[in-house]
Amino acid sequence: MPKVSDDRLAARRAEILDAARRAFARHGFEGATVRVLEAETGLSRGAIFHHFRDKEALFLALAEDDAARTAEVVARAGLVQVMRDLRDKDAGWLGVQLEVRRRLRTDPAFAASWAERQSAVAEATRERLERQRAAGVVRDDVPVAVLADFLRLVLDGLVSARAAGLPPDALDGVLDLVEDAVRRPRSTPSQRSADPSLA
Amino acid sequence: MPKVSDDRLAARRAEILDAARRAFARHGFEGATVRVLEAETGLSRGAIFHHFRDKEALFLALAEDDAARTAEVVARAGLVQVMRDLRDKDAGWLGVQLEVRRRLRTDPAFAASWAERQSAVAEATRERLERQRAAGVVRDDVPVAVLADFLRLVLDGLVSARAAGLPPDALDGVLDLVEDAVRRPRSTPSQRSADPSLA
Repeated sequence: MPKVSDDRLAARRAEILDAARRAFARHGFEGATVRVLEAETGLSRGAIFHHFRDKEALFLALAEDDAARTAEVVARAGLVQVMRDLRDKDAGWLGVQLEVRRRLRTDPAFAASWAERQSAVAEATRERLERQRAAGVVRDDVPVAVLADFLRLVLDGLVSARAAGLPPDALDGVLDLVEDAVRRPRSTPSQRSADPSLA
Repeated sequence: MPKVSDDRLAARRAEILDAARRAFARHGFEGATVRVLEAETGLSRGAIFHHFRDKEALFLALAEDDAARTAEVVARAGLVQVMRDLRDKDAGWLGVQLEVRRRLRTDPAFAASWAERQSAVAEATRERLERQRAAGVVRDDVPVAVLADFLRLVLDGLVSARAAGLPPDALDGVLDLVEDAVRRPRSTPSQRSADPSLA
């Protein structure tokens, strides 16, 4: 019954990823030694590295999962929704994001290989902004590329701020402002808040 | 002639700070060993540590200089001007900012002692936003605290993006959008661009 076996392998893989995320969050990437990963997963190194070639492969799998999920949320609900979802992200998720950002600055090989993943999110953002502009929701007096740059910068700032301890409750007001900034202007501010949330 | 001597000491101190900034930018804080600092300053460790107790004191002096200058720019021209000035910041300046952010996340003692410096920038931001609101320039339908949070997040995102290689030319469009977001709404978009730049 290969189906069951596949499900089992996938479940085990997901378990290892969750445990690795906790380990990276608690100890940092460097500090999450193979011994730490064994303790966190409850598995031997042999079992872990049956699923992932090495610690680097584990980290990349986490970062790629997150990028794929982000691209899905962007396509469905926009980059501002990704920002709203930061309310519920834990230290594990934020830790992976920070490690990705650190490597983009310090590791040219990673930065080059990562460009492809980033472009999926960038493309989903642009497509959604163009659809929302055609629907009359997004402002048309600023190029879509500028709106996309703006949203990505705010997301980066929010990830840093959440990682530095910004309470989730502080997000709402800021995100209303961000959404308002990309929205088509209305004649009065009170009308704005009645618009659907579509950036 | 104590005056000349004071000037000389101040000039030497500034020279050491500039060289240390270059060394931190090139090698990171950990990699900027005392030997690297000697090579970059052209001074002996004795001469360097006559002015600064240790490498940590050097880093803190740089970070405090930057925070004091930021607070001055905010008081005079607003936090958006600090963002526009990111055009001209080099790897040395960005490196110190990133090291500050890294420590805020990873070093609780630093985070506590730094809170005081951050509050000078936060207070200057709030005061300026309140003045500009009273002058009818800044929007009055969103609390000043939310506008200040928003601007700080964008600044954080911009510092990360510049450090990751965002070209300075990409800043202008985004910053017009940011300024527009905190500005009092006008009846037409075209009138907005004629407003003075005052966020």
